[in-house]
Parts: sequence; structure tokens; C-alpha cells
Amino acid sequence: MAEPQRDSKTFCPGPLEDQVPTSCKQAIPVFGCGSERVRLAALLDGGEASVEKFVNQEKPVTVCGWSRSVRKQGGGSLCFVVLSDGSTSTNLQVVVEAGIGGDFPQLLKCGAGCSFRFTGDVVKSPAKGQAVELAVRDPSKGHRLEILGMTDAAKYPLAKKEHTREYLREIAHLRPRSYLIGAVTRVRSNLAMATHRFFQDRGFLYIHTPIVTASDCEGAGEMFQVSTLLPPPPAETKENEKKADGAANGQAAAPAEPLVPLTKDKRGVDYSRDFFGRPAFLTVSGQLAVEPYCCALSDVYTFGPTFRAENSHTSRHLAEFWMVEPEIAFATLEDNMVVAEAYVKFCVQWVLDNCRADIEWFQKNQEEGLVARLENILAEPFARVSYTEAIEILKAEEPKAQFKEKVEWGMDMGSEHERYLTENIYKKPCIVYNYPKDIKAFYMKLNEDGKTVRAMDVLVPKIGELVGGSQREDDRDRLAAMIQAKNLDPKPYWWYMELREYGTIPHAGFGLGFERLVMLVTGIENIRDTIPYPRYPGHAEF
Amino acid sequence: MAEPQRDSKTFCPGPLEDQVPTSCKQAIPVFGCGSERVRLAALLDGGEASVEKFVNQEKPVTVCGWSRSVRKQGGGSLCFVVLSDGSTSTNLQVVVEAGIGGDFPQLLKCGAGCSFRFTGDVVKSPAKGQAVELAVRDPSKGHRLEILGMTDAAKYPLAKKEHTREYLREIAHLRPRSYLIGAVTRVRSNLAMATHRFFQDRGFLYIHTPIVTASDCEGAGEMFQVSTLLPPPPAETKENEKKADGAANGQAAAPAEPLVPLTKDKRGVDYSRDFFGRPAFLTVSGQLAVEPYCCALSDVYTFGPTFRAENSHTSRHLAEFWMVEPEIAFATLEDNMVVAEAYVKFCVQWVLDNCRADIEWFQKNQEEGLVARLENILAEPFARVSYTEAIEILKAEEPKAQFKEKVEWGMDMGSEHERYLTENIYKKPCIVYNYPKDIKAFYMKLNEDGKTVRAMDVLVPKIGELVGGSQREDDRDRLAAMIQAKNLDPKPYWWYMELREYGTIPHAGFGLGFERLVMLVTGIENIRDTIPYPRYPGHAEF
Repeated sequence: MAEPQRDSKTFCPGPLEDQVPTSCKQAIPVFGCGSERVRLAALLDGGEASVEKFVNQEKPVTVCGWSRSVRKQGGGSLCFVVLSDGSTSTNLQVVVEAGIGGDFPQLLKCGAGCSFRFTGDVVKSPAKGQAVELAVRDPSKGHRLEILGMTDAAKYPLAKKEHTREYLREIAHLRPRSYLIGAVTRVRSNLAMATHRFFQDRGFLYIHTPIVTASDCEGAGEMFQVSTLLPPPPAETKENEKKADGAANGQAAAPAEPLVPLTKDKRGVDYSRDFFGRPAFLTVSGQLAVEPYCCALSDVYTFGPTFRAENSHTSRHLAEFWMVEPEIAFATLEDNMVVAEAYVKFCVQWVLDNCRADIEWFQKNQEEGLVARLENILAEPFARVSYTEAIEILKAEEPKAQFKEKVEWGMDMGSEHERYLTENIYKKPCIVYNYPKDIKAFYMKLNEDGKTVRAMDVLVPKIGELVGGSQREDDRDRLAAMIQAKNLDPKPYWWYMELREYGTIPHAGFGLGFERLVMLVTGIENIRDTIPYPRYPGHAEF
Repeated sequence: MAEPQRDSKTFCPGPLEDQVPTSCKQAIPVFGCGSERVRLAALLDGGEASVEKFVNQEKPVTVCGWSRSVRKQGGGSLCFVVLSDGSTSTNLQVVVEAGIGGDFPQLLKCGAGCSFRFTGDVVKSPAKGQAVELAVRDPSKGHRLEILGMTDAAKYPLAKKEHTREYLREIAHLRPRSYLIGAVTRVRSNLAMATHRFFQDRGFLYIHTPIVTASDCEGAGEMFQVSTLLPPPPAETKENEKKADGAANGQAAAPAEPLVPLTKDKRGVDYSRDFFGRPAFLTVSGQLAVEPYCCALSDVYTFGPTFRAENSHTSRHLAEFWMVEPEIAFATLEDNMVVAEAYVKFCVQWVLDNCRADIEWFQKNQEEGLVARLENILAEPFARVSYTEAIEILKAEEPKAQFKEKVEWGMDMGSEHERYLTENIYKKPCIVYNYPKDIKAFYMKLNEDGKTVRAMDVLVPKIGELVGGSQREDDRDRLAAMIQAKNLDPKPYWWYMELREYGTIPHAGFGLGFERLVMLVTGIENIRDTIPYPRYPGHAEF
């Protein structure tokens, strides 16, 4: 019954009184769920001092949770329940004696997945690998066994054995009970908190940019349309029949037609009848919408869902994912790089400090050497190399590296090139900057050479591109010229242009795909396992 | 030049080293934007000690920001710039002397909305209402004036005078430069941080529930459809022409047809051709999706955007808004009330502590007596009253109160009743619980009386309903019966039912409309001014 993932650091942020801002203390009553039950994280991950405190206290302790397993012993006079409550990856062993009475006969029929409330004494454990266990044995001392919910072992989709990750995705409502998704969830929640702490502690304001928008950030990328008009009935053509057949045969449905912006819509959809009176889409980025806040209130950031309607079935893409997008006022590309590096390091340090047990679980079950890889990210300054230098370096490596795509100045580097740079050349994260203007978005600031823009990508081993950002073009005329050069319709950008007309400022920002960050710190290889309910072609259940 | 909104408390969370978790300190370099410029919040809202520090330091100070006004004096030998950088509602007066040279002649032509970088000495101010000002006068000491961006005063949409809030909404890209939206933005960002701190410090995990979903949470409510299929071209009917005319005449577009769920879709839309292979919608609540995480990992919460496609033009509704939805494990309705009350109080205390200058701005410009109203929320326990008692109380008051809608047991109380209870009867927030089952959602736990469910609403003066929640039905058979009684199709709820089949637990939760919370603490009366880019019928620009 040894539990391998024990650690002296705790996920649970400790006693409330230490965490709450001083002035708020008096306003907060301790609430029911907190006062009546002890979370397993507090009990198991608190180190020696916590063990002593619980073992020596007079009052029995109440815990709640689900059984990972139930094992009879002594011909049914004793029952061992391995209990989990999700607050930590560590389980608690509960030893229940027949003398407790009550639900005990029922307990003998329990297996994995039943829910319980136990009250008993915390005692030092004679078993290896666990400091304490809970003894539930003496009703006269207030000990108690309560079965909250049974589970029919014959039907339960989560048996004790290992399941494939594909199978777990099909039971997305139960997979948080698995070790894997439990650990991912705690790490993800911690990374979100780290994100808010990093930016808020530095005076950045959190801006909720819109999800539904009539703008299209980069003038590119497939978007989802949002409407209260029903899609049309099927046109009766051979091609549609073929598509429908494909879907019926269990293949994922293919996105049918690309979306057509109103100005190019030749079929004459009457958007005056739609909710917003015009075509509306799900945002692909909060950047354009957050810039007006940066150009008024200085440093800001967004952290919210973004969408791509790309028919992508890879392990690295989702149709719905979360993005972190700071926008820094009075800042250059250099400042941008400094903030990006500090933010990534802060997050890595945060999970090493606050999710140690989970990170060690991932090291054991997901990626050997994970902790060393994470410590390597913290160890040194990220390498910095201009795009032009990077191309020269890759060219020189070409005979050895044998890239699929030939290296040439002006190319949009592929994942193979990016990973070669960070994994083989620098052996640590590296920042590539000053990319050719032709492969980057219209809003990036043109360099003096007239050929490159002040863009930067942060590349990290194992992931490749983690962050993409730029200093923004703050000169109105140059921005207008770039919009024209890229053949974009300037009309929808009238308000974006005005930021450069009224008190323009140098500013810079970047976007970080939050799920990529989860992959980075956990070693998880399929992005669909980093988010509670992954959305991709053919998948929107739950 | 007096600036009224000065306060000893600071918005800016203070020196970085005090804020960063100890173990993270070493990983974080100080980054460019922070090290080179001082935020006005640090300079102006830091109290006496801060004033002394800046006044006595040898090195000149650099600040950046936008001019609220520029005033010449002494025949052009002196220039007063009232500067804002968004970090606080307090402005800095910058006194620039002609001797500074450089851009000075240009400065004489500046008005509101220009952007600057100034380097100078912080000196005690002889003017009333401001402790310090910045003197930019001596190039030999490193003082400097730099105009970053001009603004054509004749075209600038934000003149110095007051604008209506309707007008500000039309220039949503510039309105963050107004005092109003600046203050709202700082308060909103603080409330978001307070929300994360409240739940994370208590061990709740933050769950990103999906935005796009094939589920419909409450079996009711108009939803937006998400699709990669284009809406149909217009049917050529008189009625459509009329609608289109209305929209063209500047009226907001009306949502055309209600959405028709697939099972009821008589027009035979071929969803196998759509991205998700089925009808997909924007979520109306994260609750159903977060419950599986609660039933696996204990206490959790969501905080994300939600949507309603209701053709509502009121000052209290948005098509896109943010919701906070905790779900508490092993908890009853009582626990739910305790958490809701603690959370609301925590948020109110947080803004009083951290946004004092902004709250005082709102008290002066938005709502007289705001601070007292907020302190009243903190002062005492919220009142608690059952729905049945509340109806009796309201019936007794009917002659005096003259409600528009007659009070009867079984009614869904209107805003007039809710506000009467909290404003006239209790004169403080009150929690109404145990509502009739017929007016509440299917997932709420049935009471022993068979007539009421364990629902609760938190009502607050001025707002009415701020929070709605319930203990969830955790009995599989009763839940199935309720789904049937409410005439809902049980099929989409298969996974929700399974949570009650495998290790069910008592749990409870609530939803708080985040914009309502912003209204509560600022006194703002139109919800469209509480969110950066409000979405409502006919409005999705920016």
C-alpha cells in the first residue's frame, strides 16, 4: 500500500490566516466545508510538523473522498481504504475496524470509486512509504464511517488498471478521477494563479477582451462564426453526400466551407437579421482589443479563451484554447523579451515550489528527467539570436541535421528548425528575433533595414515555439503602408489606427498558449490532455 | 490644478520584492519597463514615506503617460502638464521650464491626449491638493522632455469636457482614457485578482470549463450557435425586408429566428458537415461541466465568459459576460451560503483596501454614500430568510409597497420584490433560500417537503440578485425524475447522471455575475460600462 508521491512541500497553500491579506481577515468567517473536513493535502503534504500536530491532537479528524481501492483483511474484521480527495496526488490509507459498526458490512462490498466520510485518529503508519494513516475504530471517541455513494464495480468505467489516454478522453466526465488528469488539473490551476500573480504583482491590469468580435486579429486564420441564424439546409450535391458519408463512417466531420467575411460574401447573407447586425466570430487573439487599454492605462494583460476553426487533428492543436497576452507600455522588443523570459521562469519555479508531488508524479510516469529539464530552464539566461544569424547557423548544420525543408533566409521556420536550435544548438530556451516582415503580421514594427520586423519567438526544448510576440508598429503611416502591402482591408482597423493618431506610444507584447505551458511543465505530449474538455474537429461533447 | 482623488493607500501592490513568493525571487530579473520608469501609483499613492523617498533621492525620476491638459504660463517660459499613466486615478503635475530645450517649443502646441516621457526631480508641490510635482528644468542634471506622440486637438474625440457614457461606448478604443473607464478597469482587475485569491487561498482549483459546448446547462435560455457553415441567404419575404429596413435605419438588429436544437430541427440542417459534427453553442454556464471536477477533486471554481442570445436592451444584461462559479464538495446549502457571503465580503474588503482612490472617485462622481454602502455590506452577517417566509413578509408589506406584480407563493420574485426585501426590510444583504421547485432548475436538490428545492439567492441593496446557487441533487433516481418532470430530454445528460451513479457526493455551488459585482462596488448603473467591450444586440465592433 506504499504511496510513492510523498513530498515535504504542500500543494495546499497552508492555513488560511497566513494567506489572507491582513485587512481582510476579520471579514471572513471560516466556512463549513473547510472547518469540518481536513483536506488530504493538509494532512499528508505538510511535512513532519503537520504529522506531529495531527497525530497528537485530541480531537478526531474528518476526511472525505473517493476510494482508489478497498481491501479486506482478517476475514473481514478489518478494511483498508485507499482514499483520494483530489487536493493532492498522495492517497490516505484509512484502516477501518469492524467494531465501528454502522455501514461496515456495506464497506466490505465496496471497491474503487465509492465516496466516503471518515472520522478517526491520525496515527503513525507502520507501512512503508506513508507517514500516517487514519484509524477508524472507536465509536465512543466519535469515530465514524459513512458511505456517501456506492459504485457498481461491474459498470464503473474507471477500473483500477491503467487506461489509455484516448479512452480517458471518451469519459471526460470521469477522467479527473485518474492520477493523470488529477495532476494535470492541479498543475494547470497553479499555472493560472502564477500567471495572475506574476502580472498583478508587477502592476499589470487584467483586461477581459471580448470573445465575440467582428474583428479578425491577424487578417488570417480560420474563424468560427457566431450567429442566431441557423445554418442552411444541405445543398443536394454529390460532394455534400460524400462528406456526410465520411462523417457517418466515424471519421471526424470536416469543416465544410471556409468562412467568408461580409465584404467578400457573394451569397448575400442578410446579416441585418443576425444578433449583432453583422458577421460575428470567435476571437483568435485578444491582442488588438487589449492594445487600446495599454495605450491608456499602461501595462495590461489578457488571459482568456481563443479559437481556431482549423481542421487540425494533431497532438499540438485545439479548436479552443487559452492564451496569455500581456501588452507592455513604453516598451521595446528588448523589454518584451525580458518580460517573456521572466514570466516563463516564474511559472516553472512556481510549479516546482507548489506542485512538487505532482511534478514528481509526472517525472515517474510521464517523462524521465522532467525535473532536470525544468531546472535547466531556470539555470541560465535564455539564448538570444537574430533570425538572420539563426538561419546562418541552421544552414551550417544542414549536412548534419538533414532537415526535411531546406533552410533559406525568408522562410517561416518549421518545428524541426526551431527544435534544432533550442535542443541541439543552445540546449536551453532561446529567443529568435527580427524576423522577415513578409512572414509576420501587419502590426509588427518595421526595423531600419526595411526588411525585418521587431518580432520575437521564445523556443523551448521539447515544445518548440512557446511564445510569439513583437514590438508594435506605433507610426500611423507605416502601419497604413503595411496594411496596404499585405492586401488587407483597412476599414475594420479604423480604431486600431487611431491609437497611433492620438498620443501614440512605443509598446510591445506577446502571446503564450497556456496549454503549451502545461505541456512544458508536465511533459504531456498530447495537448488534448492538458485542458478539461478538449475541442477539436468532431468533438464538443460534455 | 488641484487633484481631488488622493489617498494614502496605493493601487500599485508595492515593491516587487515584497510580493513575489520568496522562492521565486532569484528567478526573476527586474525588467526594462519597470526599472526605467516609475508608475504614478508608486509616486503618488504611496503616502508620506514615499513622498520623502522620492523628494530626497539624488537621481532624477522618469515617468511616462498622457496629458490630460497642457497649460502655458509666464508667456511661454513655463508649461504645466497634467499627466496620467493609468496606474492610479491620481494625476501628476509636471512643471517644464523653457530651459529644458529640445521638444519644448513643440510642447507649447500640445493639448490633451499627447504622450510623453519626462525625466526630472520630484519636488514638494506648493499647489493645494497635491503633495508632489515633477520639475523638468535642468538638462545638466539629466532632466529631459520627450514627446512620444502628438494629438490633433481639433480631431481628438476625447476633449477635456465631460462626455456622455453613450458617446464613450461609441469610442470604446479611447474610453479607457476617461476617468470613468480607467477607474472601472482598475477595480475590475482587482476584483478578478480578489476572486482568484479567495478561492485559491482556500484550496479551490481553477477549472477552465469549455466555451463551445453541445450541452445546454439549464435546458433553457437563448444560445448562440457556433458554426463553420454560413448562415443561409435571405428568404425573400416581406417580413425580412421590413427587418432589414429597421436595421438600416439605425435600430439594433433583432435576433431573427430562435435557435432550434438538432433533435427538433425540422429543416434538416446537415450537421455532419459542421466543424464539430453536431450543433454547437456558446456556453450559458460552466456549472454542469465543472461538477465532474468537483466530484473528483473536491472544491473547484470556474471564472470565464458566458453568453445569452437574448434580445435584451436593458442596462442590466449583456450578451457576453463573465461568471464566477465555485462548486463545493461534501457541502450543503448552508455551506454554500457561508462561502457566498464570505466571497462577496472578501471582494468588497479587497477594493476598499486596494482601490481606495478609485472608490472615492466613484463616491464623488457616481454615487454619494458609496463607501458607507460598501461598509454596510461588511458590517453584519447577511440576513437569511426562507422563500416561504419572504413571501409572507412581502404579502404583509403589499399595501404599503404597492408592488406591480401581486405577491403569491410559487411566484418567481421580481426585481421589485427582491430589492424591497434587501433595501426596505433588512437594509443589508439577505439570502433567500428553499425556493419552489417549479421555478428553479432541474439539478437542484429536492427538500423533504417535496415542494421546495435547496436553492438560494443572495440579494443586495441597489443590485437585487447578485448570486444564485443551490445544493445539487445527488440522488440519481430523483434527478432522473426531475428531468422527466421538467420535460427535458434525458439523453444529453447521460454523463451528468453518471456522477450520481459512481460515488455520488453532496455538493453545492453558486454563480455570480462578475459585472454585477463591478456594479455593486462602483455604483455604476449601466452594465455596459463595466466591461471593456460590451456585447448586446447590434453591437460587436472592436
